[in-house]
Amino acid sequence: MAKPLRLSTTSPTFEADFKARLHWSADTDAAIEQRVADILADVQKRGDAAVLEYTERFDGLKVDSMAALELTQTELKAAFDGLPAEQRDALQAAAARVRSYHEAQKKASGESWTYRDADGTLLGQKVTPLDRVGIYVPGGKAAYPSSVLMNAIPAHVAGVEEIIMVVPTPKGEKNPLVLAAAYVAGVSRAFTIGGAQAVAALAYGTATVPAVDKITGPGNAYVAAAKRRVFGTVGIDMIAGPSEILVLADGSTPADWVAMDLFSQAEHDELAQSVLLCPDAAYIARVQAEIERLLPQMPRKDIIEKSLNGRGVLIHTRSMEEACAISNRIAPEHLEVSSNEPHKWEPLLKHAGAIFLGAFTSESLGDYCAGPNHVLPTSGTARFSSPLGVYDFQKRSSLIEVSEQGAQTLGKIAAVLAYGEGLQAHAMAAEFRLKKD
Amino acid sequence: MAKPLRLSTTSPTFEADFKARLHWSADTDAAIEQRVADILADVQKRGDAAVLEYTERFDGLKVDSMAALELTQTELKAAFDGLPAEQRDALQAAAARVRSYHEAQKKASGESWTYRDADGTLLGQKVTPLDRVGIYVPGGKAAYPSSVLMNAIPAHVAGVEEIIMVVPTPKGEKNPLVLAAAYVAGVSRAFTIGGAQAVAALAYGTATVPAVDKITGPGNAYVAAAKRRVFGTVGIDMIAGPSEILVLADGSTPADWVAMDLFSQAEHDELAQSVLLCPDAAYIARVQAEIERLLPQMPRKDIIEKSLNGRGVLIHTRSMEEACAISNRIAPEHLEVSSNEPHKWEPLLKHAGAIFLGAFTSESLGDYCAGPNHVLPTSGTARFSSPLGVYDFQKRSSLIEVSEQGAQTLGKIAAVLAYGEGLQAHAMAAEFRLKKD
Repeated sequence: MAKPLRLSTTSPTFEADFKARLHWSADTDAAIEQRVADILADVQKRGDAAVLEYTERFDGLKVDSMAALELTQTELKAAFDGLPAEQRDALQAAAARVRSYHEAQKKASGESWTYRDADGTLLGQKVTPLDRVGIYVPGGKAAYPSSVLMNAIPAHVAGVEEIIMVVPTPKGEKNPLVLAAAYVAGVSRAFTIGGAQAVAALAYGTATVPAVDKITGPGNAYVAAAKRRVFGTVGIDMIAGPSEILVLADGSTPADWVAMDLFSQAEHDELAQSVLLCPDAAYIARVQAEIERLLPQMPRKDIIEKSLNGRGVLIHTRSMEEACAISNRIAPEHLEVSSNEPHKWEPLLKHAGAIFLGAFTSESLGDYCAGPNHVLPTSGTARFSSPLGVYDFQKRSSLIEVSEQGAQTLGKIAAVLAYGEGLQAHAMAAEFRLKKD
Repeated sequence: MAKPLRLSTTSPTFEADFKARLHWSADTDAAIEQRVADILADVQKRGDAAVLEYTERFDGLKVDSMAALELTQTELKAAFDGLPAEQRDALQAAAARVRSYHEAQKKASGESWTYRDADGTLLGQKVTPLDRVGIYVPGGKAAYPSSVLMNAIPAHVAGVEEIIMVVPTPKGEKNPLVLAAAYVAGVSRAFTIGGAQAVAALAYGTATVPAVDKITGPGNAYVAAAKRRVFGTVGIDMIAGPSEILVLADGSTPADWVAMDLFSQAEHDELAQSVLLCPDAAYIARVQAEIERLLPQMPRKDIIEKSLNGRGVLIHTRSMEEACAISNRIAPEHLEVSSNEPHKWEPLLKHAGAIFLGAFTSESLGDYCAGPNHVLPTSGTARFSSPLGVYDFQKRSSLIEVSEQGAQTLGKIAAVLAYGEGLQAHAMAAEFRLKKD
């Protein structure tokens, strides 16, 4: 029986109940931290030999050389060719839409720009792709081919030349959809390694695995701890927490659609969070009834039930405006505006990974094929971070060309400030460019 | 006597010598890590009381309440009014140029965008400012008012409503230029606290210091360790290493200008790195002669000498092309193209924090007032990261509005992929939107 917590914003205990339900913090387990630090140091020192040992120990996969842990392009293509036509077509259609969205993103916000000011000084930024990136793809129960597309395609669109994928294959079991997705997305090389040892191999490089400039993609607690530690040596995307959906409903969407949208988050993981905010108590009751009606037929009903009972919440609000304000406090990963006036509410929404507008925009369409990225900030980090995008695979260099004339005015300002900071060489470097007259 | 190492790319030992000279790694001191973890936990638990204690212990500043550690707007304005007119004017001129550059940056790459595809589906990204950010400004010997401008102005241009500055004032000694810069940049609130305790106060909030969404700005090893640990609770900018300059010279710039540019990096810090790459051996000798001639008159000659002797290097290359390739391997923070054909070489340069084109563009102009940000990626991280910018104070939310028609085609693709991943609720949520016919 799935009964998410019911709250009302008019209750005197709402604040405390709300905070308790929303609370989530990554457990920074000291034992995991130490284990990961040791693995990183070992791979940095011993390279391939260490990676082979950890792969045998943690993934139960014993091979003689790193070459045996590399997936060839032929193998990736064979996995694709071996899929049912329906899956091949769906993968390609999804990839095409994801590519086209990220091309628009690059055009809108990822191009170089320059201008000249009145004294002829050129200013701007040059935008260039990273040379080589690593994509971590989880194996086992959470092996998602769609994540391969969502990580590799923006890197490709950015212009990254080499995309190195790592995916653990416990006991050697390979997921053909993941391999096929790597083929469709155009991954350059792929290794069947995972965990902190894979992150270390990508960050430091080994004789076989090339060192990358940035590592993206989700993983378990070991992977997250490893990414945090190698940050600085390489770039990383973000540290992902459990997935979340928040549905803002005005009562106009069929209640079974909303119930299923809440399930689609809850089925990921017992820690996933599904939240409904609605000013209409009768509608909340209808959604609860649909939850009860639909749950028994769901193959993943046990996970859904645990997630909804443990972390789900249906909140009755005074108004849609109040619902929007609460949504901003949560800063959810996925935000559905399940309303027949979505554009009335969208301007009130400040913090969210992705905003799904209107009843037809189920979050699951966004997960697979609408085009935008499904790698999104979780656990309230949408307050300060963004969906994975082309910009994560680019970096910027400032461009400055001061004209002789510009150097005369700028040099005097710089010299005053530099002397003020006690940095005389800075001041004199500026003064050397002043005309001697 | 300052004698930077001399290398030639034609030497058989060049690779090894080059790597040894370039090597730098942040010492992740386990004792500092533990100390910082303790301070963070303590401030998270005890709030203001803990901050007061640490401020007394580490900064020798004993006060009765947090209120005494807040700088009022009146005090900031008084600091500005008390400056010599020349410094007031220079601060304001620099601020105006930095603001105007960052406004151009926002327009070029930080605006929301949307489009509709053929079936009427709306896709795009909404770009919004962070609500509240914290700026860490170092105190003591490295108190740079220009850094206040460089951190606060992009946040302002992005539209951040509240900018909270922290700056340690050991023994209560305040730097009037830093306070004046906070006034000019429009900092919302300022506290005279520093170290890991200030980072903790900003990340978790206390009764007095409001919790922020992101913390930017450089600091010592404790501050860096604290920022790394709170990453995820809040955003952070980057972990800065020692400052670096790389001068690519074709021999056309007066040698004393280049010598002074190398000094202007070396004077920051004994660990700062100054590199010259040049295909003209005679020119390198002239720069060396200028280094020797100019050094005795420099007030910070001891630091310059230690930096140049310990980390400086003058590299004779086969050609400018080879010099550009070596520069890409280094990915320097500051890159001067000291050539009379800078636009010939700029396209060959892939990785750098900021590129200064032509002999008149001394790095020091960029540090203070050219307009671009002086907070730049160090230690080779320009391979994957960017100058601090408006984009650091914004985040993006994907926008998706699938039309009823769009839901028919997308729903089928999503369902195939979701079933393939074993996520039935995802598939059914898509199928619920299909027309029943």
